[in-house]
Amino acid sequence: MTTNKKRTIRLALLGLEQKPDAVSNILQSFRSLGVDVVNEVFQNDNENLFVRLDGEDRFDGLLLPLALGIENLPTDIEWFVPCQRLEETLLPVDDDTPAIFFKKDHQLFLTLRSFYVASVAFVGGGPGDPGLCTVAGCEALRHCEVCLYDALVADSLLAEIPATAKALYVGKRSGHHSCGQREISEKLAYYSRQGLRVVRLKGGDPGIFGRLAEEVETFDRYSLPYRVIPGVSSLLAATTGTGMFLTRRHISRGFTVLTPRHAQKSSELEPDPVYGSYLKRPPRPVVFFMAMARIGELVENLKKRGRLATEPAAVVWGASTSSQEVVRGRLGDIE
Amino acid sequence: MTTNKKRTIRLALLGLEQKPDAVSNILQSFRSLGVDVVNEVFQNDNENLFVRLDGEDRFDGLLLPLALGIENLPTDIEWFVPCQRLEETLLPVDDDTPAIFFKKDHQLFLTLRSFYVASVAFVGGGPGDPGLCTVAGCEALRHCEVCLYDALVADSLLAEIPATAKALYVGKRSGHHSCGQREISEKLAYYSRQGLRVVRLKGGDPGIFGRLAEEVETFDRYSLPYRVIPGVSSLLAATTGTGMFLTRRHISRGFTVLTPRHAQKSSELEPDPVYGSYLKRPPRPVVFFMAMARIGELVENLKKRGRLATEPAAVVWGASTSSQEVVRGRLGDIE
Repeated sequence: MTTNKKRTIRLALLGLEQKPDAVSNILQSFRSLGVDVVNEVFQNDNENLFVRLDGEDRFDGLLLPLALGIENLPTDIEWFVPCQRLEETLLPVDDDTPAIFFKKDHQLFLTLRSFYVASVAFVGGGPGDPGLCTVAGCEALRHCEVCLYDALVADSLLAEIPATAKALYVGKRSGHHSCGQREISEKLAYYSRQGLRVVRLKGGDPGIFGRLAEEVETFDRYSLPYRVIPGVSSLLAATTGTGMFLTRRHISRGFTVLTPRHAQKSSELEPDPVYGSYLKRPPRPVVFFMAMARIGELVENLKKRGRLATEPAAVVWGASTSSQEVVRGRLGDIE
Repeated sequence: MTTNKKRTIRLALLGLEQKPDAVSNILQSFRSLGVDVVNEVFQNDNENLFVRLDGEDRFDGLLLPLALGIENLPTDIEWFVPCQRLEETLLPVDDDTPAIFFKKDHQLFLTLRSFYVASVAFVGGGPGDPGLCTVAGCEALRHCEVCLYDALVADSLLAEIPATAKALYVGKRSGHHSCGQREISEKLAYYSRQGLRVVRLKGGDPGIFGRLAEEVETFDRYSLPYRVIPGVSSLLAATTGTGMFLTRRHISRGFTVLTPRHAQKSSELEPDPVYGSYLKRPPRPVVFFMAMARIGELVENLKKRGRLATEPAAVVWGASTSSQEVVRGRLGDIE
């Protein structure tokens, strides 16, 4: 409880008249954590309570049975901490259990929640070869209770998930989404709040074309804890892994990564300076992700912007997987 | 022996008069592999032999004691295969042992050598946190007999190397090279040719600013087998791992990676189109490697080329390690 600066909290109590022992235990639990509780009991007066809770600073939160708390909560009230955790019993909770509802982002709420909500691990599962998952990623998988995984993940990596865990496929194959982005984020938050150890397993590295930002945003909004375990991107499997190194002394001092997908309206590549004035010097490598559907168009655009048809080029499918194919040639050969 | 199309080879024999049994065993071993040997014995006539071997196609290789073979070999003769391997005994060999010296890149030589030379594994050890090494990388370390490792590798990762293995530090810290690039490559080739299981452990991903190209070139020149296990680049640890995602739907469709190190002569950044015309659209992220020594200069150059002082910028040290530091701010704040 060292992160909580405020050693006294004000709680409003409602609907717990039938459970004086539970209330007393909870207040005692707080005291054993070094936190004093000042409480005020409301009886059958939800409306007055909520107005006071929402509008002024007098209360830090509510102590009420879960059954009562689910509906009509003021908007700035944070989700609950089940009180059993305070008394060191275990989840799950039932509707009749007392729980504390704190004001949003209340420091004590975050601390209490950290007792039972484990950080969701966003894991980069690597490019397909299960050997290219990180040690930390495998470790997280082996101890998870829920795993939401994508299409690009190797089957043998899924074998690391315990048999008792819930493994949910939420993959997207271009065009076919088994589950919307918003739905995935909400599912993750749902399982996390239940106090389960959740892994969100993504292909490659989740920060590169992995839509990690959208999922993490939801966690930030709910102040839910998470950690990210980076992975080997398919970028690296397709280059380093196939002997095409992105940097090379005296030849390449960098590289660029792009996707032609989801360009704004126009089917042209954006008029990006990275394509310009390349005739005057050896160009740095450019790697395109998710480019197969528009490859002809892409090559035309590159040539229009001055990349030579004789420039080395390669197409890589399924990097690092058993179906890996690498076709090396010249830009002009690609159709 | 299925990769060898030629089922008959022509060997010249020299200096093995005292070892008729050894010669007979070797020829028998070839036959058991489905390869017929036609041989011609030369006595005390090295010069004539070498001329005929070097100049014409009559012989595929030489069978001679190692002691004899080390000096004055014609230039197009490949290194040896110790004949014990044919007879299924073990390395190491001593100077009195018969060995076969093949013409360079002879297919049978490569096949025979593959019996005793294991692929050297070039392993991306990840950005520093040992948990970010791949499963395959750790596996290679655990079974190696020799490991050449860099400065950027985590100590606890080195603990995976067996106590019986030789672990050689060949690191470079900017300016201080404990071992030249050429020396590293030659050392790797040396241990590999001894039939040892060699791991070349590099920080991050070896294909990104890892000088992998130079080391692999040596292996290509000697036709020595190798495999590359990509790793989590510090690029990903510094971005995905710290919550700064390189791509984001509707915001960033790609990114560029560069280093200001080793620019040709001028201390200016190369006049690269990636810096130009950024005022007109939200710029893609640019990540600079090895930039700390020239950071003031770098920021000046970026601003000169149109990047705004108000643009978000961050500096990351020791990504993923216990000494990780992240400073977030604006381009204009960086000095």
